[in-house]
Amino acid sequence: MSYQIAVGCNIRKSPFFDATVADGAACFSVYNHMYTPAHFGDPDGEYQRLLDNVVMWDVAVERQVELAGPDAEKLVRYMVTRDVSGTKTGQAKYVPMCNYDGMLINDPVLQKLRHDCFWLSIADSDILLWAGAIAAERGLDVRVTEPDASPMGVQGPRADDVVADLFGDWIRELKFFWFRETDIEGIPVLLARSGWSKQGGFELYLRDGTRGTDLWNLVKEAGAPYGIVPGAPSDIERVESGLLSYGADARSGINPFEAGLGTFVDLDRADDFVGKAALQKISEDGIRKRRAGFIIGGDRISGISQPYELLRDQEVVGTITEAVYSPRVGENIAVGMVASGISDAEQGLKIMLGDETRSVRIHALPFI
Amino acid sequence: MSYQIAVGCNIRKSPFFDATVADGAACFSVYNHMYTPAHFGDPDGEYQRLLDNVVMWDVAVERQVELAGPDAEKLVRYMVTRDVSGTKTGQAKYVPMCNYDGMLINDPVLQKLRHDCFWLSIADSDILLWAGAIAAERGLDVRVTEPDASPMGVQGPRADDVVADLFGDWIRELKFFWFRETDIEGIPVLLARSGWSKQGGFELYLRDGTRGTDLWNLVKEAGAPYGIVPGAPSDIERVESGLLSYGADARSGINPFEAGLGTFVDLDRADDFVGKAALQKISEDGIRKRRAGFIIGGDRISGISQPYELLRDQEVVGTITEAVYSPRVGENIAVGMVASGISDAEQGLKIMLGDETRSVRIHALPFI
Repeated sequence: MSYQIAVGCNIRKSPFFDATVADGAACFSVYNHMYTPAHFGDPDGEYQRLLDNVVMWDVAVERQVELAGPDAEKLVRYMVTRDVSGTKTGQAKYVPMCNYDGMLINDPVLQKLRHDCFWLSIADSDILLWAGAIAAERGLDVRVTEPDASPMGVQGPRADDVVADLFGDWIRELKFFWFRETDIEGIPVLLARSGWSKQGGFELYLRDGTRGTDLWNLVKEAGAPYGIVPGAPSDIERVESGLLSYGADARSGINPFEAGLGTFVDLDRADDFVGKAALQKISEDGIRKRRAGFIIGGDRISGISQPYELLRDQEVVGTITEAVYSPRVGENIAVGMVASGISDAEQGLKIMLGDETRSVRIHALPFI
Repeated sequence: MSYQIAVGCNIRKSPFFDATVADGAACFSVYNHMYTPAHFGDPDGEYQRLLDNVVMWDVAVERQVELAGPDAEKLVRYMVTRDVSGTKTGQAKYVPMCNYDGMLINDPVLQKLRHDCFWLSIADSDILLWAGAIAAERGLDVRVTEPDASPMGVQGPRADDVVADLFGDWIRELKFFWFRETDIEGIPVLLARSGWSKQGGFELYLRDGTRGTDLWNLVKEAGAPYGIVPGAPSDIERVESGLLSYGADARSGINPFEAGLGTFVDLDRADDFVGKAALQKISEDGIRKRRAGFIIGGDRISGISQPYELLRDQEVVGTITEAVYSPRVGENIAVGMVASGISDAEQGLKIMLGDETRSVRIHALPFI
C-alpha cells in the first residue's frame, strides 16, 4: 500500500528540502519533527551506489542539541552511559542515553567542539527537552539549545575523493569519528568522518540553514565524476551492517545490554549517571532478550511496515523490526530481538506474513 | 506537490490504523512518532460534515502520559502554568506547559482519573521524557508511563446522538471537559466531552489497543443514521475557531502570553512551577509579538506547506503558520504571529506567495 504525506507547517523542512525535491525525492518520512527523504524512487539502485560509488543524503533530521557553558561536560557525562572523560576537542563518540530505568531513549553521536561546548547528534526523540529538564533541575550552568546545524551525509568508497575535491586533501587524514570546522564558498561547515553506514564517508554539518541548496549542489557537482546519486540511509545496508535504528528497534523499550551496546555502558565509572543504578541491577540479573540477526526463508522481502512476532510453535519468542532482501547475502535478512533462552542454533522459528508461514533462523550481527 | 510517505517500524501505527485505511485514509502525517490520517480524500467534505452532521477521527496520536503515585499531583502542578488545585476526579483542564525560559513546549489536556493518577493528553513533543526527567531529578514518588489509551474523536452537532446510542442517554448530561470510565461490548473506554474542534462532541479513549477496529466500526455503525464520515481534525475549522496547533504555531518558540494563553498562566500561585520566574519577567516586561488572525486577499488558498513572513514594506513584522479558504467567512483566513507594535487596523500588510503579492489584514480570533 502507498499513501500520501501531508505537508504542513507542523513539521519542519530540512534546509536541503527544496534541493532534494528538485532532485527527485518522492517519498518522505518524519524524524525529529522534520521531513526526511526516504528514497529517490530507486532504493535498490541507491544501495548499489552506496556500495560501489558514493551517495549523498539529507540527514538534517539528525538534529543537534548543543550543551554550552561551564557545566556542559558535567551534563554530558551525567546523561550518557559511556565514559567520555577522555574525549578530545574535535573528536566524536557514540553515546547511548538511557532513562532512569536503564531503558534506551536515544543513541546520539557526541561531538566535542570546545572544552565547554558539545553537540549531541540525536536519533528520533526530544533530547532537547530531556537535557533541558535535567540541566535546570540540577542547577547546572549550561545552555541547552538547538544550533543551526544540519548534517548531509556523503557515504561510500568514493566519498573521500568527492570531499577531498571540495575541501582539500587534508580530509584524507581525518580519522574516523573526528571532525573539523571549515567552510566552502562562504558556507560554514563542520566536517566529520562519520555516517549511518559501514561504507565510510563524511557528514557535512551545514551551519547556515539558508545555504542548503548551495551546499547540496556543490556536493552534487563534485560527486558527478564519481557517480554520486542522491539517496537516503539504506535499510538494506543498515541491516547487513547491524546498525541500530533507535526508532524502529528500540523505542518500544530495550536496555543497552539487550541492544548489544553493553560495551558502551561503563558501570565502573566513579561518577553517577542517569540509569546507572538500574543498569547495575540489569547487569547483575542478566537480560531476558537480546538483539540478533535473522535469515528469513521464502520469496524476497522488501521492507516491513510493522513489527512481526517471532514464533516457536505458538509461543512468541521475539520481534522482528526490519527485514529486507540482501543482494550480498543472497537471502532475506532481518534484525530484531529474541528471548535469551533461544540459542543461535534454534530450529523451527517462524514468522507469519499474513497467512504465509516463513521459516526463520538466527544469524550473528553484522551479516557482513 | 504530492509525496509518498514511508511506512516502517520506526513510526508506530495507531490501533485504528487498519480501520482508517479500510475506510479510505489516503494521506497521513506523523505526530508523537505515530501515523495519523490527514484526510480521507475530501477534506472540504469532511469539514462540511463536521459542521452539519458528525465526523469520526483517529486522534490516537494524542498520546497519554500517565502520572501515578503519591506525588502525582505535585508533579502535575509543577509542570503546568495553570492552577489546577481545584480539579475534581473525572474533570479535565487545558494546561499549557512551558520550559524554564517560559516558552511553550506543549499544551495538553489534563485528566484527573484518581486523586493520585493523572493523564496528560499531549500535543506533538516528548512530554514522557520531560516529565520522567523532572520526576526523577526532584525525587518524586510517581511513575511516569504511557498507558494503553488511544483517543478517537466524535465531533459535530450529532455527536451526542451517536454517542448516546452507543453508551446511553447519561452521556447527554456529561459536562464539557468531564469524563467517565465505561465500556462497550467488552471494550474499555474513557469517554470525555472534549475534542479538537469547536463543534462539540466526545473523545473515546480506547483502553485496549487490540480493539481499535472493533471500536471504530461500532462508532461507524452507530453514526450511519446521522451521516457520520471518517475524517481528521480540520485545518479550516481550527483556523475559524482560533485553535492553537502547538507543532505548527508554537514549536518555533513562543510564550503563552504571546500565544494568547495568558488566562492559563497563574502567576499568583503560591507554589513554584517550571518557567514561573521567566513568565513573571515576561509579564512585567510585556510581549513583543502576539497571536492573531488574518484575512488574506486574492484567490482561494487551500493550506500552506511552510510558514510565510508577514511583511510591511520590506520589514518582517510577523509569521503566518496556517492559511485556508473559509466557506463560512467567505475569505482566506489565517493564523500566526504579529509584532505587538502593529495594530489591528494596520494597512499595507502583505505576504509573498512565490512571486505573487497578497494583501493581508489583521482579524480578531476566533473568526467564528
